[in-house]
Amino acid sequence: MSSPRIVICGAGFGGLTAARTLGEWFSRSRRAGNLLLIDKENYHLFQPLLYQVATAGLSGPDIAVPIRSILRRFPQIIVRMDDIRGFDLQKEEVLLEGGAVPYDYLVLALGAITGYFGHATWSEHASGLKALSDAHQIRNQLLLAFEEAESTEDLRKREELLTVVVVGGGPTGVELAGAIAELARRVLRRDFRRIDPTKARILLIEAGSRLLTQFPERLGRIAEQKLRGLGVDVRLFSPVQDLRERSVVLAAETIRTATILWAAGVSPHPLAASLPVPRDRSGRLLVLPDLSLPGHRNVFAIGDMVSVPGVPAIAPAAMQMGRHVAGVIIRDLGPGTARPENRDPFHYRDKGMMATIGRAAAVAWIGRAAFNGPVAWFAWLAIHLAFLIGFRNKVSVLFEWTWAYLTYRPGARILLRSEGTGRPKRRSPSASSRIEDRPGTSGSSR
Amino acid sequence: MSSPRIVICGAGFGGLTAARTLGEWFSRSRRAGNLLLIDKENYHLFQPLLYQVATAGLSGPDIAVPIRSILRRFPQIIVRMDDIRGFDLQKEEVLLEGGAVPYDYLVLALGAITGYFGHATWSEHASGLKALSDAHQIRNQLLLAFEEAESTEDLRKREELLTVVVVGGGPTGVELAGAIAELARRVLRRDFRRIDPTKARILLIEAGSRLLTQFPERLGRIAEQKLRGLGVDVRLFSPVQDLRERSVVLAAETIRTATILWAAGVSPHPLAASLPVPRDRSGRLLVLPDLSLPGHRNVFAIGDMVSVPGVPAIAPAAMQMGRHVAGVIIRDLGPGTARPENRDPFHYRDKGMMATIGRAAAVAWIGRAAFNGPVAWFAWLAIHLAFLIGFRNKVSVLFEWTWAYLTYRPGARILLRSEGTGRPKRRSPSASSRIEDRPGTSGSSR
Repeated sequence: MSSPRIVICGAGFGGLTAARTLGEWFSRSRRAGNLLLIDKENYHLFQPLLYQVATAGLSGPDIAVPIRSILRRFPQIIVRMDDIRGFDLQKEEVLLEGGAVPYDYLVLALGAITGYFGHATWSEHASGLKALSDAHQIRNQLLLAFEEAESTEDLRKREELLTVVVVGGGPTGVELAGAIAELARRVLRRDFRRIDPTKARILLIEAGSRLLTQFPERLGRIAEQKLRGLGVDVRLFSPVQDLRERSVVLAAETIRTATILWAAGVSPHPLAASLPVPRDRSGRLLVLPDLSLPGHRNVFAIGDMVSVPGVPAIAPAAMQMGRHVAGVIIRDLGPGTARPENRDPFHYRDKGMMATIGRAAAVAWIGRAAFNGPVAWFAWLAIHLAFLIGFRNKVSVLFEWTWAYLTYRPGARILLRSEGTGRPKRRSPSASSRIEDRPGTSGSSR
Repeated sequence: MSSPRIVICGAGFGGLTAARTLGEWFSRSRRAGNLLLIDKENYHLFQPLLYQVATAGLSGPDIAVPIRSILRRFPQIIVRMDDIRGFDLQKEEVLLEGGAVPYDYLVLALGAITGYFGHATWSEHASGLKALSDAHQIRNQLLLAFEEAESTEDLRKREELLTVVVVGGGPTGVELAGAIAELARRVLRRDFRRIDPTKARILLIEAGSRLLTQFPERLGRIAEQKLRGLGVDVRLFSPVQDLRERSVVLAAETIRTATILWAAGVSPHPLAASLPVPRDRSGRLLVLPDLSLPGHRNVFAIGDMVSVPGVPAIAPAAMQMGRHVAGVIIRDLGPGTARPENRDPFHYRDKGMMATIGRAAAVAWIGRAAFNGPVAWFAWLAIHLAFLIGFRNKVSVLFEWTWAYLTYRPGARILLRSEGTGRPKRRSPSASSRIEDRPGTSGSSR
């Protein structure tokens, strides 16, 4: 293969790491070849800080970097913003909204979406937190609830508006509940005249016996204590029976609330189900030890789409997988025409995991050692800053954090309620981007 | 009036200045009273920098500050986020979405919206730039046009996508055209593989004989030269005959383009037309010299809603009007029971005006003196930073400017195309905010 065509689908942590590793190898080895990186957005999103966009601490561009900008120094990499429709593994083609693209190597790195355990209607009542639009939507919902509580005369309704329920006691749920508690109790404290935001009820609902089940038990208990200290009503052993319009149904009680946030589960990208590959119970792809798909030596899947025993669904794991797959492809393409028969299996190097619980508190589980308190919090800050892509973003986030820490007045408390509604619907880019393909629809209906 | 009720509608430059001036007076004089400030958003928007949000230089929260946060130290001021439905000047009530509010004094400061000279359909084809949602919409449209141009095979369509038409040669049009030219020629230059963003056509269409008619002729010519130097195709004497789907019709030619931006006119807020008050040809209210409405001594109108001879529709004028009206009300409420019969008329103090044309170029007209070049540009930077509310915002904008100046890589090139479309429509806050009022609609239709 003198000029191999490599297609990477998804520019999250896994896909981007694979692209960079391959781009560097192409540059260094002066090999011909082309690498196409496809994503439905024009930016790479630093998901670990998404909850801070949702809770008005950061703004979107702080944690999103244009993919083209990240990869501009690799001439072999072509970035394409497009919607992936499917894959034809027989013809070796990726089917895009804008046509089919052939590949010699394919890397699937499409990540996960919010999953509701098969309860289709629950998504109507509870917002997940996977995309930047989710974060903006949650921010609007939270800020608007306080605004409406301030202006309503109906006390029952006010109580509903001042109740926030976070479902799921994993890292996302813990971080969201902590950040919302701080928003209400410290940030918005003096902003209102008729309501007292510090009286807002924030509930964290968890089905199991403790929070942060991926962490050692002690750290889960510490997180629980810290959250209770911030005024969060932590409910363990409380599986959700049903989500309805403005209410969360538990076995013992039904909680009336204007804001339900869902942090209880994710599903792999829906396209995972379209592949002729075995999947685990939650729908994640079961891959071979080298991360290729069974029966398709030139197709790999990485990150939150796949299930590899002992590997958690976190950014460092996706990045390691991306690097591994790039290495396998590089060795395949390396000097000599014979491709190696035996490929190295993927080995996960556990760098630990961590979660923050509001101001100056965090838990970390690194190399079999448990940390908490300010040390863990500083480690969390430093590691997240270090991995955030782009110097501009690092400076901007560091400034926002310092400012918010000193003043309790984070910068992004902006309610974009006219977003997408102030103008006629057809002007939304996702609609207009497809208009030209269907000339028949471009007439009076718009 | 021992405890006067003052209602200010609109938290732009005029309304906010009036509120602050009155808030300070209430605090200083220890008078009882309450002041209600109503806005449809929860933030004050620094409109002079809106074009930089539209052209990916700044992000929304950089130029938007929560109103409650600005006014939190004034206990007499109540901030309410609500939609104003109308005014009953006989009953002395403001009619809100959430009920009627009585007033003793009313200040109307609702500003302006994009105006299309009565061509109702033009708004479907051309985006204006008055609200934060407009800026986000334009940013998405611009970035998406380049993305689509990169992926299309159709050369005619590619040309359309790489053509941007700005209509209107006033300060907004000049600043937009200059910033878009820089975005294409300097920022996006190396980001694409198949298209060359530096070949994008940017046209600035002006009906009259020159740009910046509010400025001295020489500055208009300098702005024109600077724009041409940036590659902008400036068309004078070119009134728009019609705007259609993806095309701008001029007398001599029809320009095919995917992006039409409208900077040719504004209209006063639609509620201006509902008031029993004479208006000028463009619909702006004609007020008495003290800025009160004829026949309504306790109702004032300020800012872009009103027409006062010799006063331009710019932020400093609105702020001066806000301060003037606050002063009139304060003297009315001052010691003694007799209100002054004669009120001071409003006098505009001309502090000058300025416009930037891309990097290190600007024109300024200050105290009958014309400036241009780097001096004017630095003055522009300094003055805009000085007037931007909030220390956090000043630092953040200064950092973004410095960064973009040094690197040509501004931070907000994020295409939020899933914003408002990724989730079911009913979750948009402006929709959900009204749901509770109409229980009958909350069923299966959503």
